[in-house]
This record gives sequence, structure tokens and C-alpha cells, in this order.
Amino acid sequence: MSQLVIVGTVAFDAIETPFGKTDKILGGAATYIGLSAAQYHAKGALVSVVGGDFPAEYLELLESRGMDTSGIEVVKDGKTFFWAGKYHNDMNTRDTLATELNVLADFNPVVPENYRDSEVVLLGNLHPEVQSSVLDQMSAPKLVILDTMNFWMEHTWDALVEVMKRVDVISINDEEARQLTGEYSLVRAAQKIQEMGPKYVIIKKGEHGALLFHKDEVFFAPALPLEEVFDPTGAGDTFAGGFAGFLAQTEDYSFDNMKKAIVHGSALASFCVEKFGIERLENLTREELYSRLQQFKQLTQFDIELH
Amino acid sequence: MSQLVIVGTVAFDAIETPFGKTDKILGGAATYIGLSAAQYHAKGALVSVVGGDFPAEYLELLESRGMDTSGIEVVKDGKTFFWAGKYHNDMNTRDTLATELNVLADFNPVVPENYRDSEVVLLGNLHPEVQSSVLDQMSAPKLVILDTMNFWMEHTWDALVEVMKRVDVISINDEEARQLTGEYSLVRAAQKIQEMGPKYVIIKKGEHGALLFHKDEVFFAPALPLEEVFDPTGAGDTFAGGFAGFLAQTEDYSFDNMKKAIVHGSALASFCVEKFGIERLENLTREELYSRLQQFKQLTQFDIELH
Repeated sequence: MSQLVIVGTVAFDAIETPFGKTDKILGGAATYIGLSAAQYHAKGALVSVVGGDFPAEYLELLESRGMDTSGIEVVKDGKTFFWAGKYHNDMNTRDTLATELNVLADFNPVVPENYRDSEVVLLGNLHPEVQSSVLDQMSAPKLVILDTMNFWMEHTWDALVEVMKRVDVISINDEEARQLTGEYSLVRAAQKIQEMGPKYVIIKKGEHGALLFHKDEVFFAPALPLEEVFDPTGAGDTFAGGFAGFLAQTEDYSFDNMKKAIVHGSALASFCVEKFGIERLENLTREELYSRLQQFKQLTQFDIELH
Repeated sequence: MSQLVIVGTVAFDAIETPFGKTDKILGGAATYIGLSAAQYHAKGALVSVVGGDFPAEYLELLESRGMDTSGIEVVKDGKTFFWAGKYHNDMNTRDTLATELNVLADFNPVVPENYRDSEVVLLGNLHPEVQSSVLDQMSAPKLVILDTMNFWMEHTWDALVEVMKRVDVISINDEEARQLTGEYSLVRAAQKIQEMGPKYVIIKKGEHGALLFHKDEVFFAPALPLEEVFDPTGAGDTFAGGFAGFLAQTEDYSFDNMKKAIVHGSALASFCVEKFGIERLENLTREELYSRLQQFKQLTQFDIELH
């Protein structure tokens, strides 16, 4: 198994969906990624920043799931990043009600010394210069995965282009892929993105699954059809965490193994949306994960003889 | 191999997409279904109606592909059904520019005597009473597949409910499934539809693939990611034709075999959209189909060991 460095937000979220609303609960990309990656046998470290208002029990929760939190800086006189959002009835669109960057505004990530030689790095959605500064600290990662979003395309294009040159895999959603390239066709968008740096391109389509592109190859994993999506928050991060965690565990960064990693990520994301926030991930067992992977097999596998 | 009865429109279409526009060309649901089903070893008959303006060469084309056209009534002093449509830039929405029912307004389908004992019946999108009248003529079909659309839900609800009780498989798109049941979740919609009659529910999601539901089982086949969708006209009918044709050839109407049939339908639909109208289907070879099925395998198949 490899070591895995996860950089991203650790935050308070307040979420409203047609099914109810929460007070400030534990959230943030790195939280979802970490809890998801924790399903795998890989030594993982979270690199993030929180304020003095961040409960020690949350850090303990992450530690208890096997995540090293020594890379989470605690700014005693600062406040933790806060996000509030409300989902529309179709669950595919949401309004952001509040974004308080707080300590995140001056986030200067420091990778713990004993993780600088890690093989796998997952750069969660953050300012691309912050993402680059993490890579500067790594000695020779074998697999760098980048998440980003339209905000950085609009406001920090040059920095985004720079960090993209340094990563192996990019994970973005369909609209972001279109915005990044100006191509409506996802096949063409993936080609253009590969020309920008990442050799592997994951395009997430939410309830419509995820595509993995590499050269002329393409793989698709559906999302599990669910009776109800309770809260989509963190699904994309959970997906990325499962993807990275599985690859760190298996230490095989081939396209074929990435296919499996995509399915693992999709399975974990299908749990994430079943309850509010991290509730479903928090106590998820390996048995539940394997049972769901079996469902993915039944959902997608067929046997056609080609004469 | 079984016999297959295909009921639906044979028409003139005028199509405009961002890539160009056509004059009146051969179209209609039964045309696409027939050309798609013709890829399989099954004796198929088209049941439809056309006007005196319908070129003999079009009938010859269908015959040359192995379709029995003796069930296509020619109303000498009538005009053939005509549809004109224009697709928007995203190819997912279109405006209907013209719908001239002509001879279709008084369509009274007659199944040829030698096809009344056919095992498989595909009821293409038509007035549900017309669909029912076809079933009245069949002696004991083993598999009845129904296509329909929102128009019939809005205008002929009772007749639609009646014909739904008599079919085994329904094939509709996601929006239609939601409209039919009032359920946003496709899983719940499929459950409700099964209570209405069809034991198998296919929900087509266009570029996002297709789902097959049966009791607690669900199977998903993606659409092939394409660089360009040239003309989506007939893709759903081509899908249904491949599904029905494969099942008629294999004479196995189990859920497991339907999975394969869904993949065959998806593969054929992926050809359909590559050119205008029936152009790509017209001369499609079995070798091309098998090569594309191989692509579907690569697109979806993975190997996860579950310990």
C-alpha cells in the first residue's frame, strides 16, 4: 500500500434539501475524501486548515478512521470555513446561501515531513496556486489527482493551466469540462484536456455516472439508480476519495486498475447521498461496500458472445 | 428464430440539425425499427400505412433488408405521414415544425395472416387504441414491447392504461416515465409502471444511456460517448428495433438475455445518430455491429474481486 496525501477544505456545512435541513455540520472536500479513502488500506494524511471553533471531536473522528490529521493547521483565533447551500427539488441544482472563507483565505498548506514522499496526491478543489504549492513539497509522487471547479476557470485561469500541467488525473464535472475547453462533446473536451496536461480525464455526470478517458480508451461507470437522493453534498469528493484510496491501496496506476477505482468511487458516492452530510460514510463498513460493488456488477455486467 | 411483428409509422421526415438539413427523406418509427431489427436472424413484418406518394423504391429498400412489407397498406389517393423538426444546438431538444398525419389519421392496422402467430410484437409509438387493435389480431405472442410518448398520456390516458395491461415490456424516456407516474425518481417510476402492467420497464435517457427494470433487478447500458451526434432522429426506435430483433433471434425472453438485447439496441442507436436519417443504418454490416459491441464491452466491463 502507498501513502496518500489529501489536500482540501475541512469545513462547517449547513445544508437544506427537500428532505430537511441541518445546522452547522462537519463538511468540506477533504473530509469527504478522507472518510471515503479510509475504506482502503492506505496511510492517508489530510492537509487543511480550520479555526479555533473547530471541535476536537471532529479531528478525533477523522483520526479514528485512520486519517493522519497532523497536517490540519488549527488557527486558534480564526474561524473555520463555512458553506451553506440549498438544493432545488430536482437535486441537480443548488443555491449557495453563504460562503465564509475565514481561515481558508490565508491557507498555506504544509505537508507533514513523513508524507512528502507519498506516492499518491489528491488535490481537492482549492485555489490552483495552493494546489501547486503542495506539489512543490512532494518529492516524487507517482499519481497526482486534481479536482477543480468553474470558479477557478473564471478567476485564476493561468494558475489553473499551470497546475494542470503537473497532474496525471483530473476529475471535473461535465459542465466544467465544457467550460474548460469550449467543447460541448465530452469526447472532444476530454481530448483537449489531455493536451493541457492530465493523461487521464474523469468527467463526472452526477446521477448519470462518470467517464474515464485516456488516449483512445474510454470507460464508463453509472451512478447506482436510487429511490431517493437525500443530500448530494460531497458526492463528487467521496467519489474522488474512493478512486484515490483504491489506487493507493493497490499501487497499480494503470488504466485497467483505474476502471476498478472508478467503480469503487461510484459505489462510495452512492452511499454518500443516502443521508445528510457524512452521516452515511461515517460508519460505513467494508461489508456494505462489497455488497454494493456486487450491485454495480449486476447493474453493468453482461455477457455477449462476439462471433 | 421467431417471427417479429413491427407496428409503427412509415413516413417522410424533413430534419434540420446544426450540421445541415434534409429534404423529405424516408423516416418513421417502423422504418428505423425495421432496419435495426433487420440485423438479426428473425422474420420481420412491418405493419403500417403510406400514401400513393410513397416511392416504391423505399418499400423495396425495406424488403431488400429482409422486412416483409405486405402489411404496409398503400392508400393510393392519400398522402404519406410527414414530420419536420429542427434540433437545437445541444441536440437534446427539438422543435416540431410540421406534423401532417395524412393517411395515418385513419390507420387501421392489419397484421398479415402468416404473421398472426408471431412470438414477438413491437408496438411502435402510435395511438394506444391502434396498438390494442394489433394485439387483438395476434394469437399468442410471447413478448409484446410497447413504445409510447407523452402525447398519448395527455390525450388518450384510458386507452394507454388499457394497452399497458397487455404488454410485457414498455420502452419510454425518462421524462415520459416521470409524467406517467408523477415520480421524479426513476426507480420509483419503474416500480409504479410495473404495477400498471409491463413486467419489464426500459427507461431511455438519450445520451445518458438506458435502464432496464424488472422486480428488484436493474441493468444499465450507457450510450456510446461520441465525438458528434449528427442527427438524433430515430435513435429510440433503432434502440427498440435492436432490442426486439435480438430477442426474436435468440428466442430467450429472460431478464439476462434482455440485458444483452439492451446492449445490442444501444450499439445500433449509436450508429443511427452518426448520419442523417437512416443513412448510417441502411448499409450497416454485421461486422460493424460486432466491432461496436466490442467497444461497449470495453466501455463498461470491469473485473473486481470481491473478498
